[in-house]
Amino acid sequence: MEKGDIKEIVFIGAGNLATQLALELQKSGLLIKQIYSRTDKSACQLANLLNVAYTSNIKNIVSADLYIFAVSDSVIKTLSEQINCEKAIFVHTAGSVDMSVFSAKREYGVFYPLQTFSKQRHLDFSSIPICIEAGSKNVEERLISLAKKISSKVELISSSQRKQIHLAAVFVCNFTNHMYTIGANLLESNNMSFELLKPLIYETASKIKELSPKDAQTGPAMRSDEKTINKHQDMLYDKVCLQKIYRFVSESISLEHKQ
Amino acid sequence: MEKGDIKEIVFIGAGNLATQLALELQKSGLLIKQIYSRTDKSACQLANLLNVAYTSNIKNIVSADLYIFAVSDSVIKTLSEQINCEKAIFVHTAGSVDMSVFSAKREYGVFYPLQTFSKQRHLDFSSIPICIEAGSKNVEERLISLAKKISSKVELISSSQRKQIHLAAVFVCNFTNHMYTIGANLLESNNMSFELLKPLIYETASKIKELSPKDAQTGPAMRSDEKTINKHQDMLYDKVCLQKIYRFVSESISLEHKQ
Repeated sequence: MEKGDIKEIVFIGAGNLATQLALELQKSGLLIKQIYSRTDKSACQLANLLNVAYTSNIKNIVSADLYIFAVSDSVIKTLSEQINCEKAIFVHTAGSVDMSVFSAKREYGVFYPLQTFSKQRHLDFSSIPICIEAGSKNVEERLISLAKKISSKVELISSSQRKQIHLAAVFVCNFTNHMYTIGANLLESNNMSFELLKPLIYETASKIKELSPKDAQTGPAMRSDEKTINKHQDMLYDKVCLQKIYRFVSESISLEHKQ
Repeated sequence: MEKGDIKEIVFIGAGNLATQLALELQKSGLLIKQIYSRTDKSACQLANLLNVAYTSNIKNIVSADLYIFAVSDSVIKTLSEQINCEKAIFVHTAGSVDMSVFSAKREYGVFYPLQTFSKQRHLDFSSIPICIEAGSKNVEERLISLAKKISSKVELISSSQRKQIHLAAVFVCNFTNHMYTIGANLLESNNMSFELLKPLIYETASKIKELSPKDAQTGPAMRSDEKTINKHQDMLYDKVCLQKIYRFVSESISLEHKQ
């Protein structure tokens, strides 16, 4: 069994998460040896940022201590089957993929940074929780040691817990961001700037530093203010999709606060 | 017609918004003369914070330059009809109530701070947009001058625009906060701490400083990742309400990104 620190890393994938994680690991002194992506263009884009080699041919992958798969869930298994490097650890960064996707490998695990990434936006990794899972104690120790180089919030999380975290993340991040989009669209279609809503958005997020989200809840649904709820539904008469969201989220708020 | 600065204010209502706004106006040198609330208990609570008089009998309201109605939408009209003070301006702080609720008065308007308030949480008003509407130019000027004492973001907003803002605010604040509650419940029912999600929540809000929410969108619905969407729906099999929210918000994200 291989021991010691992970030093050489190959990235399989060059999307938002791969970009930010590769930049951060390189900054922390790790050697990013190569970037693989399905297209030369995207592989090259990230490789140039890091000044390292790249390929779009999975057969040309070089040897490394660690392969980090940051690709679509559906291609992790197939791609990993085409890489033969006995001494390497195989990890993925996916919320909803079981670690067992790598069970044909000797050493494997999961390295899941719980954050929303965009290519353009650089992040401070030190406060990003990194959820680690590993197929063996040895790999666990090596992944934890790697994660601690970039974050102070390293957590051991099982595959089933990680799936719950990912589901929760879809609500608090992806769905929240879509609420912002809906707000922006409503204002802009009435000739007002989305800027108006920003202080409210920042404060809504800041509030949970002090209060539980349940205690922080305000608004018509929380007050069972049927008159306002009905007015709002009427205003959305030509937006069936938003009307449904309005109705079911309001119902869910009522349910939560009746308990 | 009365001219000059507003100096003496009576608050009708003692809830979250009344509490924070009264504290802020007092801090800025305005004289809060009296607090009215439906119950002595809540009137007294706010009055004590401000060290001013209070009443729960609307007939005992004293004269003032400005009455600020921060009460349930449904009682604004009835309460205002019981206050006779010819020289005063009557304003409410409600998102979805037309200014015409005060049309029987001589001078009236709207003073709507666009923010989420809780009694326990003190806020910096300087960046809170205050939406002003007035029945006359004179009242408009006096309300703007008052608003500028506490905020640098004073906006003239019509009743119909304000209703759109309020609807948008329900999505970006109340519904977003409920997404946080759902996330907290999912984690806590699986023995994990809500703390894990906080860096993700803060970053989701911060992202829109640089990116439009549409450009900031990430997640399975955005990627049309049907497999993950189906997995998540299955995980919510015993939570019908959340399943509906998951489905319709995902559909709305798809719709937004197909356009």
